[in-house]
Amino acid sequence: MRKEATMLRPAQNGERYELYSPTAMPKAGGFLWNQKMMIQITCRGFATAQFMQPEPAKYAHAPNLEAKTFMQPEQNYYAHHPGRFVYIKDEETGQLFSAPYEPVRAPVDRFVFSVGKSDVSWVVEHLGVRVEMTLLLPTHDVAELWSIKVTNLSNRPRKLSVYPYFPMGYMSWMNQSAEWNPDLVGVVASSVTPYQKATEYFKNKYLKDKTYFLCETPPASWEANQQAFEGEGGLHDPTSLQNPVLSGCDARYETPTAVVQYRVNLQPSEAGREYRFLFGPAYDEAEIRCMRDKYLSKEAFAQAARDYARYIERGRGCLRIETPDKDLDNFVNNWLPRQVYYHGDVNRLTTDPQTRNYLQDNMGMNFINPEVARRAFLTAISQQEATGAMPDGILLTEGAELKYINQVPHTDHCVWLPVTLELYLAETADYSLLKEKVCTANGDSFTVFERFSRAMDWLLKARDYRGLSFIAQGDWCDPMNMVGYKGKGVSGWLTLATAYALNIWASVCEHEGQSDLAAHYRSGADECNAAVNKHLWDGDWYARGITDDDVSFGIRQDKEGRIWLNPQTFSLLSGAADENKIAKMLPQVDSQLNTPYGILMFAPPYTKMREDVGRVTQKAIGSAENGAVYNHAGVFYIYSLYTLGGQQDRTYTLLRQLLPGPSEADYKQRGQLPVYIPNYYRGAWHQFPRTAGRSSQLFNTGTVSWAYRCFVEGLCGLRGDAEGLTINPQLPSAWDAIKVTRLFRDATFTLDIRRGDVDKVAVKHNGKVLPEARITNIKAGETYQLSVLIPQ
Amino acid sequence: MRKEATMLRPAQNGERYELYSPTAMPKAGGFLWNQKMMIQITCRGFATAQFMQPEPAKYAHAPNLEAKTFMQPEQNYYAHHPGRFVYIKDEETGQLFSAPYEPVRAPVDRFVFSVGKSDVSWVVEHLGVRVEMTLLLPTHDVAELWSIKVTNLSNRPRKLSVYPYFPMGYMSWMNQSAEWNPDLVGVVASSVTPYQKATEYFKNKYLKDKTYFLCETPPASWEANQQAFEGEGGLHDPTSLQNPVLSGCDARYETPTAVVQYRVNLQPSEAGREYRFLFGPAYDEAEIRCMRDKYLSKEAFAQAARDYARYIERGRGCLRIETPDKDLDNFVNNWLPRQVYYHGDVNRLTTDPQTRNYLQDNMGMNFINPEVARRAFLTAISQQEATGAMPDGILLTEGAELKYINQVPHTDHCVWLPVTLELYLAETADYSLLKEKVCTANGDSFTVFERFSRAMDWLLKARDYRGLSFIAQGDWCDPMNMVGYKGKGVSGWLTLATAYALNIWASVCEHEGQSDLAAHYRSGADECNAAVNKHLWDGDWYARGITDDDVSFGIRQDKEGRIWLNPQTFSLLSGAADENKIAKMLPQVDSQLNTPYGILMFAPPYTKMREDVGRVTQKAIGSAENGAVYNHAGVFYIYSLYTLGGQQDRTYTLLRQLLPGPSEADYKQRGQLPVYIPNYYRGAWHQFPRTAGRSSQLFNTGTVSWAYRCFVEGLCGLRGDAEGLTINPQLPSAWDAIKVTRLFRDATFTLDIRRGDVDKVAVKHNGKVLPEARITNIKAGETYQLSVLIPQ
Repeated sequence: MRKEATMLRPAQNGERYELYSPTAMPKAGGFLWNQKMMIQITCRGFATAQFMQPEPAKYAHAPNLEAKTFMQPEQNYYAHHPGRFVYIKDEETGQLFSAPYEPVRAPVDRFVFSVGKSDVSWVVEHLGVRVEMTLLLPTHDVAELWSIKVTNLSNRPRKLSVYPYFPMGYMSWMNQSAEWNPDLVGVVASSVTPYQKATEYFKNKYLKDKTYFLCETPPASWEANQQAFEGEGGLHDPTSLQNPVLSGCDARYETPTAVVQYRVNLQPSEAGREYRFLFGPAYDEAEIRCMRDKYLSKEAFAQAARDYARYIERGRGCLRIETPDKDLDNFVNNWLPRQVYYHGDVNRLTTDPQTRNYLQDNMGMNFINPEVARRAFLTAISQQEATGAMPDGILLTEGAELKYINQVPHTDHCVWLPVTLELYLAETADYSLLKEKVCTANGDSFTVFERFSRAMDWLLKARDYRGLSFIAQGDWCDPMNMVGYKGKGVSGWLTLATAYALNIWASVCEHEGQSDLAAHYRSGADECNAAVNKHLWDGDWYARGITDDDVSFGIRQDKEGRIWLNPQTFSLLSGAADENKIAKMLPQVDSQLNTPYGILMFAPPYTKMREDVGRVTQKAIGSAENGAVYNHAGVFYIYSLYTLGGQQDRTYTLLRQLLPGPSEADYKQRGQLPVYIPNYYRGAWHQFPRTAGRSSQLFNTGTVSWAYRCFVEGLCGLRGDAEGLTINPQLPSAWDAIKVTRLFRDATFTLDIRRGDVDKVAVKHNGKVLPEARITNIKAGETYQLSVLIPQ
Repeated sequence: MRKEATMLRPAQNGERYELYSPTAMPKAGGFLWNQKMMIQITCRGFATAQFMQPEPAKYAHAPNLEAKTFMQPEQNYYAHHPGRFVYIKDEETGQLFSAPYEPVRAPVDRFVFSVGKSDVSWVVEHLGVRVEMTLLLPTHDVAELWSIKVTNLSNRPRKLSVYPYFPMGYMSWMNQSAEWNPDLVGVVASSVTPYQKATEYFKNKYLKDKTYFLCETPPASWEANQQAFEGEGGLHDPTSLQNPVLSGCDARYETPTAVVQYRVNLQPSEAGREYRFLFGPAYDEAEIRCMRDKYLSKEAFAQAARDYARYIERGRGCLRIETPDKDLDNFVNNWLPRQVYYHGDVNRLTTDPQTRNYLQDNMGMNFINPEVARRAFLTAISQQEATGAMPDGILLTEGAELKYINQVPHTDHCVWLPVTLELYLAETADYSLLKEKVCTANGDSFTVFERFSRAMDWLLKARDYRGLSFIAQGDWCDPMNMVGYKGKGVSGWLTLATAYALNIWASVCEHEGQSDLAAHYRSGADECNAAVNKHLWDGDWYARGITDDDVSFGIRQDKEGRIWLNPQTFSLLSGAADENKIAKMLPQVDSQLNTPYGILMFAPPYTKMREDVGRVTQKAIGSAENGAVYNHAGVFYIYSLYTLGGQQDRTYTLLRQLLPGPSEADYKQRGQLPVYIPNYYRGAWHQFPRTAGRSSQLFNTGTVSWAYRCFVEGLCGLRGDAEGLTINPQLPSAWDAIKVTRLFRDATFTLDIRRGDVDKVAVKHNGKVLPEARITNIKAGETYQLSVLIPQ
C-alpha cells in the first residue's frame, strides 16, 4: 500500500503528486537507505551518498578537495571555484561577457595575460569593449588591490553595466553571512571558524573570519548572496544580470558573495573610469576601515605598487647573464631569483616547514641575503634533539606544531646541514657562525660546530650492521614509508648522502684546524661508500635500498621502480662511484630515465601497491612521487654532473628542460608559463603520453635553490671558497661566449667569457692574466672586470 | 627594468607577450606573495589565496565544504556538485535538455518528482520527449540501481542521443584515474585514500576506493574524464555533447566521471528501451563483477525492489490513524515510522553515535521492534564508566573511536537511560532486562538495574553546593560549551532533567520492590526541583543556568537568549513547576517562542559571542543552535504538554507545525517535502523573515522517536504499563472522531474514538463498558475492537 509525498499541488487521485516547477523547491528530495548506506537525492538530481566501511565514506565526490590542505594547484577548477571576475553587459543589446574569461567563457577577440614580477594584469576585448584588470599586493598587509578599467573601442556611444564579481564561497558551516555596508562602501562577509572544545575557541578567537570587498567608487547596486545572484541562470548567465539592477540581497547562513554594478555611458573610443577595489580578510570592521583608509585610492595604489616592486627587487639575486638563449636569460635574471626569494622569505606559507625544505630554501637565500640564511641555520639547529638528530620540521611561530608528514619519522634531515652550510660558507666565508653557542629546549648548549658534529655522529650511528643508513618511514624526495618501518630497512640514497655530508663536514673541520675530526668523518664517509659499493651496486647502477625483509629494490630484476635517480646522483657527489661505474651508470640514466620533459625520478612507474615500498607506489602514475619528472631530484643530478665536470652539453639540455618551451607544443603540453619551475612535470611518458609533461603548477619546490646554484657555480662556474672566487665556466658546446655579472661578497664581477685558444680557463684582470682562475683578496664595493677565455 | 613572461606567441617588442586563446593554457597563471600571503591566479580569473594567521587560511573559499564531514544537506548545491543526470540531445535539431533538471536547467514542460517509501522517481517531459528515472537500493549491498526510460511523445519519428552522466568527482589527491572497462561494460574509477603513516595504510587497505558505473546495455560511446567531457561548454552545454560520439577519453590523475551515449530512434509515440545502471563503490574488479552478476538485469532489479520494500515494510510501526487531517494520517501512518526505523536501524551512519542520540533513536524502535531497543540498552550500558557516568558516545564497531563532539565532555548522558527505558517497559513490560548481568571493559560486573542506579547516583553527585547539576562543556540540545568549562557552571535544564529521570527510576525501583531505593531517588528528585525553584525561577519562567562566574542566564534581564524552552518543558515533566508557575510560564512560551514554523529553542537569538555561554552564541542566527525552531526541543515541549493534560489544541497545533504545509506558501518557505521532520527549521522569524522557516534538510534527529510517542501516547492516548494499556485520547477540539489501529504486545487494537456525552473516557469492549479506560490481561494474537467515548 504505497503512499507518496504530498507536494506543492496534490493531484486528484491522492496517490501521486506533482511538482510543476523544480525552481520552487530546489532542495526537495528523498532519502533512501539500507543498513550500510544512505543517499539524499534532490528533485534536481543532486545527490549526496555515504556508506560505512566502517566510517562514513563517499563514492561520488565534490570536485574539489574535501579537506583543509595546502594550495593544490594541480586540481582542476570548476564552475564555482573562487575567482576574481568582471561581467560586462551591453545594456542596449543584452549581450554579456566576462573578463578575464570565466565564468561566461565568451570567445573574446583579444586576450593578453601579463605576469609581471610584482603584478598580474589582463587586457580582454570583446563586443567592442576593452577591459583592463590589474592585481597588486601591498607589502605588509594581507589584501588584494584590484584596478578595473573599461574602454569603448567602437565608434558609437555605449551604455554598459560593469559588474565586478568576487565570490567568497562557503566560509563556515557554523556561521556565515554577508551584507552591504554603506559606511565601508562594500560587502562584508562574516563567519566563525568552527570549534568544538572550549580551548579551541581561545586559539581561534582572533582569526580574521571576515572577508570584505570594498569599492572606491560607490556602485549603482549590489548583491551579497551567491544563490540570489546566480538564480536559475547559473554563473555563465546569472539571473541577477538579466535585471536592470542587482537585488541588494544579503546572505543569512547562505553562501556569501560580492557583486556590484556600475552603469557606464561611454562616448566613441572613450576610456572609462578606472575602478579600484580592495579584497581580503579582516578581524573586524575597524580593521576593514583602516585598510580602506590606507589603500583604497589612486595614490595609495601607486605607492603600494612602488613599495611592492621595491620589496620584490630586494630578491633580485647575484647573477645577470647574457647568453645566446634569451629565454634562459630572462628566466635566470628575473624569475628564478624571484622564486628563490619567495622560498627564503615566506617559507612556503607554513609554520612548520620540513627541515630539509627549510634548510634548502634558505640555502638559496645565500645568493640574495646571506644574513637570512645565517639566521635560518641558527633557528634550525636550535631545535636539534638531544641525540643529535634533527626534527622532521622546524617550528617558526609560537604555538606551531609538527603536522601531517612531519609526524612521520624520516631519517635524512641531518644530511642537509652541511650540504646547505657549504654554500653559506662559500658565499660569505663567515666561519664565525660555527662558534655561536646555541641552546635548545632540552637545556643543552653547544656551538654550531659542535651541533653539526653531533648531527654527523647521529648519521654515522643510524646505520645497520652492514653500514647502511636506516630509512624508518622515509627519506628525501620519494617517501617510501614502508621500506623500513619495522626498523630494519635501509636506504642506499641516504647512505650515499651521508657520505656526501660527512665529506663536506670533514672539509669544514679541516678549515677549523680539527684534523682528527676531519679524518674521523672522512673515514665515516669512506665506510658508507664502501658499504654501498658492496651491497647496492647492481652491475650497471646503484640500488635504491633494502627492505625490512632484506629485499633489495631499484634493481634490474624489478619490473617497476627498476632504477632510481637519486642514488646515482649522490654516488657522484659522495665519491662512491669510480670512473668505471660512472661509465656504466650515466648511459643507464640516459636511456631509462630521460624524457623530453626532463629526467624521471625513477622508472618504470609503479602500477600497483608494493607493500614493502609503501606510499610512493600508491600514488597515481606520473604524480609527484610515482615516476614523475621530479625537478628537485633532476636538478640535483644536474648539480652532480657539474661537480663531475666535462658534461656541459648534458647539463645544459637538462637545465633547459626544467622550463616549459621554447617550442609552442612544449608550452601547450606543460600548460604553464615559464616564470617558475614547478615541483614536477608528470611522467609516465611511455605509458600515458597524453598527460606526460604537464606541470604540477606547484610553485613550492626545493628545486630552485639548486637550479640557481647550477647557474652560478655550474654554468657560469663562479664558486666561492674561504679566500675568494674560482672561475670555471661550463658552457654548452654550441655557445661561443656569454657575459655575466656576479655580485659576491659586496663586490661586483663582470665577466666576458668566450672561447679561446687555451688549454684551461684563463682569466685576465686589469690587462693581466692571473696565475690561476681565481680571485682572492676581494674588496667590498669594488667592480672587477674580467675577461675569461675557456678552451674551444 | 620590468620583464614579462614569454607566452605562446611572443610579441614583437619582446617586452609584452600575448596569449590569444585562453583555452590553450587553462592553468597558466601567476603567483604574487608578500610575507603574509600568497595568491595564485590564472589567466581565466580563477584564484587560490592563502594567508598566515599563523596557520594558512583562506578568505575566499570553494563553495562546498572543505572537510570530510557528515552529510550537510543545508549547504547549497553548485554546478559541480555530485548528482545523477541524463542529457537528452535531439540529433536532428541539436537541442539539449537534461533530466531530472540539472545541469542544463531547461524549462521543462512537465515535471513529476515522486518520493516513495522505497524508491525515488521522476517523470520529465521536454521537446516532446518523456524521461522516466527511478532509483532503487538493494537491501544488503552498497549500490544504486538506476532505470532510465525514454519515450517519444511527439507524432514524428525521433533520433535522440541519451547520455547518462554520473560524475565521480575529485576522489583523492593521492591517486585517481578512470577508464572504460569493456568486460564490465562500464566506467571504473580508481583512487587511494591518502595516508601518511604506515599504520594508517593497514587501516585503509581494504577500503572501497573504486567507484563504478555499469551499463546493462552496451552504449555507443563513453567518456571517463570530467574535463574532456565539459570542455569549454561547461556542464550546462558540454563540449563533448556537440560531437556525434563521446571521445572515450580516460582520466589519469584527472577528475573521473562516467558518461555514456545511447543512440535511439523512436517511432511516433514509441516508448524506448528501459536502460539499467549500477553505481557504487567497490574494493576491486572482482567485487564489481559480482555486483553486476547479482543486480544488473530486469529480473534482479524487480527482485531487489521487492526485497527492499519488504525491508522498509518491517519498519511500519504500531499505529494507523484515520483523522480529519489526511496529510497528518499519511505522515503518521507511513513516513514517520519510516524515519523512526531509519534511526534505530542505521544509527545515523556513524560508528560512535552520541549516547543521548543512540538511546533516544532506539527508544523509537520500541514501537517497531523492541528487541532492537533491548539490545541497544545492553550495548550502551556495557560502556558505562567505573564512576557510573555514561561516555559521550557509544562505540558500535571494533576500532571505532569517539570523534568530534564526542571528545567534548557533556554531563547529561545518564539522564537518557531511564527516560528511554520507560518506553521499553511500557511497550514490553519486560522487566527481566533489569536483571541481566553486564560486564564492561573496566572489568566491573553489575546487573542492568544496578547500573542504572549507579548512573542515577552519578547524576546526584554531579551537582554543586546548591544542588544544581554541573554542565562542564555542554548538555543536551544547546551546546553552551563555555558555561561550565571551568568546573563551576550549572545547568538548570539538566537539574530538572535529572529530577525527571530520578522520578522515572524511582517508579521502576518501586516496581522491583526496592522501596528504599525508590524513596532515595524520589527525595533526590525533590532536592533537584527545590534547588531549581530556589535559584532559577525568574518570576515568569525558569532560567537556563548559572555560569562559572555565577551569572544567571536565560533571564528577563538578558537582551539575547532571554527565555529557553527546555527548562520550561522539563519543569513540567519533573514536577518542579506548580500550577501557579505553569500559569505564568505557558503564556511566556507562547508569546516569546512561538512562530508560524514551530516553537523556538530560545529567543531572542544571539547576535554576537557571549564568552560565558560559548558555541551556541557563535552560530549563525537561525542555524541549528542559535534560536532556530529546533524540533527535538519542540517535540519534548509537546510531549510535556500531553503529560500535563488539558492542552489538546495547543499540542495539535504544535505537532502540525513539525511538518511543512498544508499551505503552499508554507511548503515553499520550508523548501522540503513533508515526508520527514528535519532537525530544525530556521528561526529568527522577527529578524530575518526571508529565511525563517527553511528546513535544515537534515533527516537525522532525535525528534522522531518523541514525535511518534506523542502520536501514540499523547494524541491517541494509548500508553502501556506493567499490566496493560491505558486509553486517554487527547483530540483537538475541532475533531469529533478518529479511528486508530494500535499494535501492542502482539495484539491488535482497533479503536473507534468519538466524542460522547461522558465525563471521562469510556471504553466499550465486546458490548460492555470497562470499569476503567484500561485493558489488562492482553492476549497475543488477539484483536480488540474498542469503542471509545471521550468528553465533548
